[in-house]
Amino acid sequence: MTDIFGFVGAVLTTLSFVPQAWLVLRTGKTEGISLAMYALFTVGVAAWLVYGVLEDALPIILANAITLVLATLILAMKARAVIQARSSVQGAAEETSAPIAS
Amino acid sequence: MTDIFGFVGAVLTTLSFVPQAWLVLRTGKTEGISLAMYALFTVGVAAWLVYGVLEDALPIILANAITLVLATLILAMKARAVIQARSSVQGAAEETSAPIAS
Repeated sequence: MTDIFGFVGAVLTTLSFVPQAWLVLRTGKTEGISLAMYALFTVGVAAWLVYGVLEDALPIILANAITLVLATLILAMKARAVIQARSSVQGAAEETSAPIAS
Repeated sequence: MTDIFGFVGAVLTTLSFVPQAWLVLRTGKTEGISLAMYALFTVGVAAWLVYGVLEDALPIILANAITLVLATLILAMKARAVIQARSSVQGAAEETSAPIAS
């Protein structure tokens, strides 16, 4: 009985990242997504995965391996958007300052 | 040694929702956030919390209680935005159809 709750928890928290990853891939919109969250979360899930491997606990390995793939994908999309936004701000600043410099 | 990975995993995956909740609260922007993710995730974390209580496992209880509060907050903000968007679309549709009907 108790294990059912753990099983439901593991399945739902793992599967929940599928619609989030799909939304980010489909729309390319990452504005409301926190870079800090996915940076911390991805490292945390990787740590859980190592724990699962060391403990030889298959449910922990499986759940965290799947979550790691999905979280890394979301993190990569968000990081790309942040880098693109920064370089376009820099580009705009250079364009703006150019007439003043010339 | 093994426990360190579990501890780091638990702390990071729990704390990671703080910047996400803060971003949503601060900006009110939930566009890139998946409603389906937070609906599944919140139920999953609640299931983990019940598991932790039944197993009398304090680390599982603590981590999931904190995550449940943060995830519920993000889910509520997202759900509110979805409901507001739907009612404004409905309002716009009614305004548009009004001249045709009259």
